[in-house]
Amino acid sequence: MIANGNAASHRVTQWLSEFDDALSRSDPAAAAALFAEESYWRDLVAFTWNISTAEGRPAIRAMLEETLAQVKPRNWRLEGEATQTDGITEAWIIFETEVARGKGHIRLTDGLCWTLLTTMAELKGHEERRGETREKGTEHGVVPGRASWLERKAREEAELGYTRQPYVLVVGGGQGGIGLGARLKRLGVPAIVIDKHARPGDQWRSRYKSLALHDPVWYDHLPYLPFPEHWPVFSPKDKIGDWLESYVKVMELNYWTNCEAKRASYDEEREEWTVVVERDGATLTLRPKQLVLATGMSGIANEPKFPGMEWFEGTQHHSSRHPGGDAFAGKKAVVIGSNNSAHDICADLYEHGADVTMVQRSSTHVVRSEPLMRHALGALYSEEAVKAGVTTEIADLIFASIPYRIMHTFQIPVYEAIAKEDAEFYARLEKAGFMLDWGDDGSGLFMKYLRRGSGYYIDVGASELVADGKIKLKSGVDVKEIRAHSVVLSDGTELPADLIVYATGYGSMNGWAAQLISQEVADKVGKVWGLGSDTTKDPGPWEGEQRNMWKPTRQPGLWFHGGNLHQSRHYSQFLALQLKARFEGIPTPVYGAREVHHVA
Amino acid sequence: MIANGNAASHRVTQWLSEFDDALSRSDPAAAAALFAEESYWRDLVAFTWNISTAEGRPAIRAMLEETLAQVKPRNWRLEGEATQTDGITEAWIIFETEVARGKGHIRLTDGLCWTLLTTMAELKGHEERRGETREKGTEHGVVPGRASWLERKAREEAELGYTRQPYVLVVGGGQGGIGLGARLKRLGVPAIVIDKHARPGDQWRSRYKSLALHDPVWYDHLPYLPFPEHWPVFSPKDKIGDWLESYVKVMELNYWTNCEAKRASYDEEREEWTVVVERDGATLTLRPKQLVLATGMSGIANEPKFPGMEWFEGTQHHSSRHPGGDAFAGKKAVVIGSNNSAHDICADLYEHGADVTMVQRSSTHVVRSEPLMRHALGALYSEEAVKAGVTTEIADLIFASIPYRIMHTFQIPVYEAIAKEDAEFYARLEKAGFMLDWGDDGSGLFMKYLRRGSGYYIDVGASELVADGKIKLKSGVDVKEIRAHSVVLSDGTELPADLIVYATGYGSMNGWAAQLISQEVADKVGKVWGLGSDTTKDPGPWEGEQRNMWKPTRQPGLWFHGGNLHQSRHYSQFLALQLKARFEGIPTPVYGAREVHHVA
Repeated sequence: MIANGNAASHRVTQWLSEFDDALSRSDPAAAAALFAEESYWRDLVAFTWNISTAEGRPAIRAMLEETLAQVKPRNWRLEGEATQTDGITEAWIIFETEVARGKGHIRLTDGLCWTLLTTMAELKGHEERRGETREKGTEHGVVPGRASWLERKAREEAELGYTRQPYVLVVGGGQGGIGLGARLKRLGVPAIVIDKHARPGDQWRSRYKSLALHDPVWYDHLPYLPFPEHWPVFSPKDKIGDWLESYVKVMELNYWTNCEAKRASYDEEREEWTVVVERDGATLTLRPKQLVLATGMSGIANEPKFPGMEWFEGTQHHSSRHPGGDAFAGKKAVVIGSNNSAHDICADLYEHGADVTMVQRSSTHVVRSEPLMRHALGALYSEEAVKAGVTTEIADLIFASIPYRIMHTFQIPVYEAIAKEDAEFYARLEKAGFMLDWGDDGSGLFMKYLRRGSGYYIDVGASELVADGKIKLKSGVDVKEIRAHSVVLSDGTELPADLIVYATGYGSMNGWAAQLISQEVADKVGKVWGLGSDTTKDPGPWEGEQRNMWKPTRQPGLWFHGGNLHQSRHYSQFLALQLKARFEGIPTPVYGAREVHHVA
Repeated sequence: MIANGNAASHRVTQWLSEFDDALSRSDPAAAAALFAEESYWRDLVAFTWNISTAEGRPAIRAMLEETLAQVKPRNWRLEGEATQTDGITEAWIIFETEVARGKGHIRLTDGLCWTLLTTMAELKGHEERRGETREKGTEHGVVPGRASWLERKAREEAELGYTRQPYVLVVGGGQGGIGLGARLKRLGVPAIVIDKHARPGDQWRSRYKSLALHDPVWYDHLPYLPFPEHWPVFSPKDKIGDWLESYVKVMELNYWTNCEAKRASYDEEREEWTVVVERDGATLTLRPKQLVLATGMSGIANEPKFPGMEWFEGTQHHSSRHPGGDAFAGKKAVVIGSNNSAHDICADLYEHGADVTMVQRSSTHVVRSEPLMRHALGALYSEEAVKAGVTTEIADLIFASIPYRIMHTFQIPVYEAIAKEDAEFYARLEKAGFMLDWGDDGSGLFMKYLRRGSGYYIDVGASELVADGKIKLKSGVDVKEIRAHSVVLSDGTELPADLIVYATGYGSMNGWAAQLISQEVADKVGKVWGLGSDTTKDPGPWEGEQRNMWKPTRQPGLWFHGGNLHQSRHYSQFLALQLKARFEGIPTPVYGAREVHHVA
């Protein structure tokens, strides 16, 4: 193994040396020639001040031609030992640019680079203080008029947003806004995170009672402050709410509760935003240079418009406003939709003694939680991974090292294995009439999430109820109309209803921009999320990265942040570094800005 | 090095094997013969259900004769590789008893054991759930009438102390009560922590404004949830207060704020306490089986009684109630005392423009913070230690492995080095008239802390002010009387005063027992803290461990917990295991209970 490791390490060191030579000679052609014909260079901010993947030699060469003179990359080094498996040599690398230190990952095949990941780790001269560079906390000696930590904190709270403007305004204080806020705090970028709720964590607390995270704890850590070792695998919603609240306090965020952004506009000349907010009922105007929308990757709720809704005499609401099943024992409930929320809500209503019918309008991808964790996440995010030395940082970087273009090829076998293992489970679901799918190309849940952010259910028990008929199912139908006490379906069925829940999903995140800024800006920015995979709800052309997320948009000073806890944690690093560089006046020429092909 | 390590490991394995043999044969004499003539076996709960050190072969043999039949120790194993330095072989070991798994540390010299540390790590069948045994957090599947995490939490809060009694009541919710509360929570022991303040952390917030921890961050971690990497070296008081408050929330303690214990009595027959508490103004009675006083190792403030105090027309108070110097610019302040609080308060008053005089009645041990950290703590608690793989757990166990009987011999050279390095500093202090000492035997600060809990100042700047005469000094005098506007000293000096601060220290912790329970119980328990070192304020006879701390006292069901953050963290493990065993009905025969020699 050591000999093997050393041989592999030698290969990588050799490659890095040639690569370094080519880059130092400013020879993009020679550098690109070190890549295989099928090759991918994914860059997170280090070369492109963008989140961007160059696919193939010509694209890599073009990227280098544009960026090399400014980036001045150097000191490429192997970190640790390389490994060799199935003809692929893999290694961790570090490097520097003119302004930053970076960390990367490389895969070689036949001596050429197949995948390269470059990420910015820190800006030189602007490193976060931690470990041996941490602050002392108190100034020893005599400091007349010294302000205590509490006084300095109170002063900052009194000034920021009033007599002193934040450089960044983050709208939305869920896990996304909070994690980004923490990174900006550690980087010394004046920022305010605002949220309409009364307490941090209310974004979770206010959802239906039975909600728990569907992702496991190892996947969910926030930056800087990991969950302790006893934290449950799947956090109940109120517990994660409390964690977020404590996190805000401990990380000393400038977090404004009871605060809503009412409208925003961008002054091109002053290069700054005017954002009118209402805080605790008082209206004030903020003038940040950068505006981050972290209002939820799900965007604005899709409120359906079915004929007759206005005549319904029971309770009806979108799933995002559903409080839980407590009040519906013995009642008749109809849930329109068949994704995660629909299933969770149906199961909860059933548990509370309601008579529930799920209306499935199109096919859904279902995976049981246990095999999903084991097959899809286990190698990187699990107790076994922790034991094998796969820290959260390592897991995130390995994950990031897989180019989106070929990610589905890694995913398909995972779901084939699950389909085989759970064949009996799927057969029972289909027998009950449930319409199943595995994604357009069989690549399963995570690709559906990345492409469209919908279309699946991580089964934590509801599917069994569907298979058993305990949750009644009407599938392959649509809603024709709503009557005073019933839902009428396209096949003529009339379902009596005291409660209707519309689990009809969410729009694109640029809906938030339309709401807060203008439709014009929302259209300029275009659709947010998705890869351009030319699959259902993710139209092409191919983008190579998620649209508009964590990177510059077509609207100067406007950014989108969010996603699940993993994405919020990982990508907040790169968004925070982009904002920090701008705050410090470090040039940030953006390479590879994309055309907008879809407005929503 | 590897060869060396292997030889050392072989020696330890050999020794353990012989030791195991002797113990398995129930042959205390043979086991004791494996120890050197000068030898120490320190046991934290694993053998003795006590915190106890057996010194020398006869004591070790006696301990084994009493405990072996019940403890049934076995499976002694080397953990990792042993090391060899200066003729001493050192190693980590693990072992089992009938009811527990243990971790230990051993030092061999000439093939015999010089020091042995045995600690209980966990009770079999009652292991804390963490890592791969962590809870799932949500029950998948259908559970009619399921209660959410929030509902279960609310129910526990409503019941515990009202319709259901806690097994343990912890009086005092500073770092000690909080850390213990967290351990009991993880072990599933129903406990309530009560505190008179409005918020957790107010114990720190309510102190004088300039207060910061004098111990560095690496020494101060709480159990389960370490400070993040950016945490400052010396936490300002309000920041540590906020951390404690978040900790209480995140660890889900049953923590009652605004709650004071008014009186307590023990029912010998029912083996339970009756504790009358006032919570938010309402009086209720709790009936815990175990009562832990975690009200501060400093005990009750020593309020001095100087003639004429009642006629003083300015502001006067004990240091524990001093708010900070803000209100005293241009005023004349006299601080009676010369330990930590006295120095901090003098410096703060000086910074705020007061005219300050310190009255030093007896000599004080002064060490500057920087060399103290470097010489005394650096090897175990520092960034360098972290880098060298010395985790908090390892550091705590190494620390615990030094027997108290010989600890001063390790400490004396540390302070000799500091005295030499800072000779010029000490000369200037003495020139200003400051009376210095280094402890009765020159063993410095930590031994003073363990023996008497007082008599020193960790210099963070005030000594410079004393040396410069900016803080005026009257030393070698006592207070004769207080007049309306002055303090008169024993040498006849009259110091004009608008403010008098009595930095006159604190009594023994059993003062809390006298106050809450009765003088009779306080006397039965006797003095708390100190080693019986026969040095100033720590009268003999030798105890070998700190009196009454974290272990059974002469009063059934009464325990004392506290100390600095390091002690609260480390010893809460063993106190919690003692309480858990009693809660589960596991026999806990106590070996080596001490006679009471001093009542306060």
